[in-house]
Amino acid sequence: MLYSHNCGQLRAEDIGKEVTLCGWVQARRDHGKLIFIDIRDRYGLTQVVFIPKSAPEAHKIAQDLRSEFVILLKGVVNPRPKNTENPKLPTGQVEVEAKELVILNPAKNPPFEIDDTGEVSEELRLKYRYLDLRRKKIFENFVLRHRLYKIIRNFLDKEGFIEAETPILTKSTPEGARDYLVPSRLNPGQFFALPQSPQLFKQILMVAGIERYFQIAKCFRDEDLRADRQPEFTQLDLEMSFVKEDDIFGLSERLLKEIFREIKGIDLKTPFPRMSYDEVMAKYNSDKPDLREALKQEYAFVWVVDFPLFKYNQEEKRWESEHHPFTAPRAEDLGLLDSALDKVKSRSYDLVLNGQEICSGSIRIHNQELQKKIFQIIGINDEEAKKRFGFLLEAFEYGAPPHGGIAFGLDRFLAIMAGVESIREVIAFPKTQKAFCPLTSAPSDVEKKQLRELNITVTVKKEA
Amino acid sequence: MLYSHNCGQLRAEDIGKEVTLCGWVQARRDHGKLIFIDIRDRYGLTQVVFIPKSAPEAHKIAQDLRSEFVILLKGVVNPRPKNTENPKLPTGQVEVEAKELVILNPAKNPPFEIDDTGEVSEELRLKYRYLDLRRKKIFENFVLRHRLYKIIRNFLDKEGFIEAETPILTKSTPEGARDYLVPSRLNPGQFFALPQSPQLFKQILMVAGIERYFQIAKCFRDEDLRADRQPEFTQLDLEMSFVKEDDIFGLSERLLKEIFREIKGIDLKTPFPRMSYDEVMAKYNSDKPDLREALKQEYAFVWVVDFPLFKYNQEEKRWESEHHPFTAPRAEDLGLLDSALDKVKSRSYDLVLNGQEICSGSIRIHNQELQKKIFQIIGINDEEAKKRFGFLLEAFEYGAPPHGGIAFGLDRFLAIMAGVESIREVIAFPKTQKAFCPLTSAPSDVEKKQLRELNITVTVKKEA
Repeated sequence: MLYSHNCGQLRAEDIGKEVTLCGWVQARRDHGKLIFIDIRDRYGLTQVVFIPKSAPEAHKIAQDLRSEFVILLKGVVNPRPKNTENPKLPTGQVEVEAKELVILNPAKNPPFEIDDTGEVSEELRLKYRYLDLRRKKIFENFVLRHRLYKIIRNFLDKEGFIEAETPILTKSTPEGARDYLVPSRLNPGQFFALPQSPQLFKQILMVAGIERYFQIAKCFRDEDLRADRQPEFTQLDLEMSFVKEDDIFGLSERLLKEIFREIKGIDLKTPFPRMSYDEVMAKYNSDKPDLREALKQEYAFVWVVDFPLFKYNQEEKRWESEHHPFTAPRAEDLGLLDSALDKVKSRSYDLVLNGQEICSGSIRIHNQELQKKIFQIIGINDEEAKKRFGFLLEAFEYGAPPHGGIAFGLDRFLAIMAGVESIREVIAFPKTQKAFCPLTSAPSDVEKKQLRELNITVTVKKEA
Repeated sequence: MLYSHNCGQLRAEDIGKEVTLCGWVQARRDHGKLIFIDIRDRYGLTQVVFIPKSAPEAHKIAQDLRSEFVILLKGVVNPRPKNTENPKLPTGQVEVEAKELVILNPAKNPPFEIDDTGEVSEELRLKYRYLDLRRKKIFENFVLRHRLYKIIRNFLDKEGFIEAETPILTKSTPEGARDYLVPSRLNPGQFFALPQSPQLFKQILMVAGIERYFQIAKCFRDEDLRADRQPEFTQLDLEMSFVKEDDIFGLSERLLKEIFREIKGIDLKTPFPRMSYDEVMAKYNSDKPDLREALKQEYAFVWVVDFPLFKYNQEEKRWESEHHPFTAPRAEDLGLLDSALDKVKSRSYDLVLNGQEICSGSIRIHNQELQKKIFQIIGINDEEAKKRFGFLLEAFEYGAPPHGGIAFGLDRFLAIMAGVESIREVIAFPKTQKAFCPLTSAPSDVEKKQLRELNITVTVKKEA
C-alpha cells in the first residue's frame, strides 16, 4: 500500500513514528505561518501540520491544497499541543508533522460540502453520488449492508443452506408486475425477461433436492414507480424442503435475532407474535400493523398469517391469487375450493416490522392435482399454464418434495435498520422515480446498428 | 422439519431410536417378502426394510414405490444383519425398519438414472436439470461454489473490503463486446444495458473513497458463443485505492492460498512466479502458458505482466487498447506515447492457472491529462469519450485516488477446482451455445402488448 497507516489509526502510542498517510483534504486552516489540514479516508480523520521551518517544500505545496485534493504525505507523529487535543476524534491526541507532501490528484470545488452538515437536494446527491458516498453518514449505510450480508450468509451456512445463483436472463415469472425484456440477438424476435424474483427457480431447486437454498438476489419489476420503489431491488430469497410454517418462522426468527444482536446489540424476544389476517384487519384495519406502541418496543415484529388465498378482481370479474398461484391453501380449507372461494385461507405469511412488510412467503403446493385446480379457479387454462410455467409443472411430475420459503426485502429492511426514510439511502446507485440514473444518465439512446442486430425498431419519435 | 434425521445421518450409535426420514426412493429391491429401499436426500442414503409382519400397511404401500418417489417414513434403527454391512456407506452399519410410510409425491420414470453411472446427453441433462442436480457428482459442484463464495467473502471481509452492489440496469461499458439491451418503458426509445462488468462503477466507488470494494458480480456479454462462454457469467470483482501491483498480487495470492488450503488441503507456494508478456510469448508462444510440467505441480500459477498497452487493428488501421482504455501505462514508458506505441507496456496483469486465464486486472489511470491522451491515441474524441463514460471522467475531476483491481472468472476457476471440462457443469441453469435455456425455453415469444408498451417492434418474421 502507498500508506503506512490509515487516517483513523494513529493514537498516542504512535507518537514518534514516521508515517505515510493517503487521503482526501477535508479542511485547510492557515494559522499564521502554520498550515493545518485534516486528512480523511473511510477510516477517519487525522490532523496534519505543515511547519515552514521544519519542511519548507511541503509547506509550500500545502498552500495549494483545497478541499478534496487527494494527497500522500510523510511525517512524524507528535502529541497535540496541550489543550488542543480533540477527545471526540479517535486520533484526537496526535497530529502529524508533515515532512513531505505529494498531490496525487487535484479536485474541483465540490458542488456540496462533504462534511455532514449541509442539506443537499437528492438530485444533486445522486448525480455526484461519488461525493455523496464520501459523507460518513451515507458511507455507513453501505458498511451496514456489508455487515448484514455477512451475518445472513454465515448464519444460513451454519443452518445447512446452499447459496445458489439463478439466471438473470430468463423467462417471465407470473407475479403480476411487468417484466423487463431483453431482445435476443441469436434468437431473432424472441426475448429474455429479467426475473421478478427467483420464485420458479427456487422451487426447481427444491425438486432438485437442494433442500435448503438461499440467495441474495436481484429482482426486477417494470412498474410505475411509487415513492419508494426501484426497478431493481435486492431480496434475501430462501426455500426449504420438508417443512411446515413453524420451521420457516423459527429460522427467520433465529436469523433476525442474530442480526439484531450483532448490529444493534439488542436481544430480540422470540417467538414473534402471530396474528391472523382477519384479526389484524379487524383490529388495525391494516395487514401491516405498527405494534411499537402496543408492544412497547423499538422494533416490533408480528407475523401475519391466514391470508385469503384468492382475491376477487372486480374489474375483470374473476378470482386471482392473493400471493402467487403456487401458494398452498390450508388443509382444512380444501373443501371450500368448490363452495366458498372467499373463505379459503392460504399457507402464506408476512413478517411486519414497525408497520412495514419486511418479508413474505408461503408453503407451496407440491400436489399436481391441487395445482391444476388452483389454476382453473384463477382462470389459467392448461395451455396457458404450460406456456407460462410448464417447466415447473413438468418438474413437479418427477418427485417434488413439500416445500416452502420466504423472501426478505433487504433494501427496506436496511432502511429501517439505518433509520432512514428512503431505500435510495441504502442503494449505492439508485434510480429516480422516472427509472433514471442521474449519475450515468441511463437509460440512454443506443446506436441504430445495435437495434438492427437485435432485430427491433423503436416506434416512438423521441422528443428533442 | 418433517424429518427427525437426514438420510446421511444415522450411525451405529443411533440403533434403537425411532426416526422419521424424508427423501427420494433411490432403489427398490424385493427380497422375497421383504422390500428394501434406499432413501436418498442431499446428505446421503439410508437403507430401509419393510417387513410384512412388523408393518403390514407400510409394506403394502411400499409395493407401489418407484424410483424418485418422495416419501416420508417412520421406523426404528436396527443394526444391519451380520455380513450385510456396507463399509463404503457412512450409514452402512444400520438400516431402518419401517413402521409407517407416506408417499408425499409420486414420480414419473425419470429420463435418465439418478445414480452416477450412466452417460447422458447434455441436452437431456439441461432440460431436466432438476434431475441432473440430484446426482451427487453434479450437486457437489454447487456445494463447492457455495464453499468458495464463503471463503472469498470471509477472507475479503477480514482484509477490510466492503461488498457493494452495482446496478444491473445501467449504461454500456466500453469493453468491446456487444451489450444486452433493455428497452425502457418509462423513457420511450431509450435503453438500459446489462453490465459487461462493474468496471466503471468500481472505479466510481474508488473515487467515492470506499478504498476496498468487492462484489461477486453477474456480467453479461452478447457474444457469439464459443465452446465455453455463457451470456451471463460470474466474476469476483475487486478494486483497491492507494495500491501498487504488489498489493494486488499479494492479496490475490493470500486469497488463493486460503481457498486451496480450505478446499483442497494444499499449501500453495507463494509468491507465484511472474513472467513478462514478451518472455511467455518467446518461451511458450502463448500468454496463457501451462506450467504444470515445468513447476512439477498439480496447480501451476503464473502472473503474466508487462502486456503491451495497445494493439494495432489492421482492419481499421488504428491503435486500440489491449486491456481497456483506463489501464495505466508503465511510468517508464510514458515517453514512448509520442514515439513508439508498440513499445508501451501497461500496468495490467493476468493470473494464469494450468494454462487458463483465471483473473485479469490493472492499475488504472487516475490522471485526467494522461487519460485524455490515451483516448486520443485510440481515436476516441472528447465528444465520444464524454458520451460513453463522461460520468467517470467527470468523477475523476473531483479527487480520484490512484487505484487498481482485478477480476476473477469464477465459473472457469470453479471448473478447474471441480476437475470438469465445461463451465456449464458449475452453473446451475446454464444456456446452450445458442444462448438458449433448455429448461425454461428462454428466450421466448412475448405478447404484442408487452412490445407496444416498450415502444418497440420486431423486424423479423419468425420461422414457423
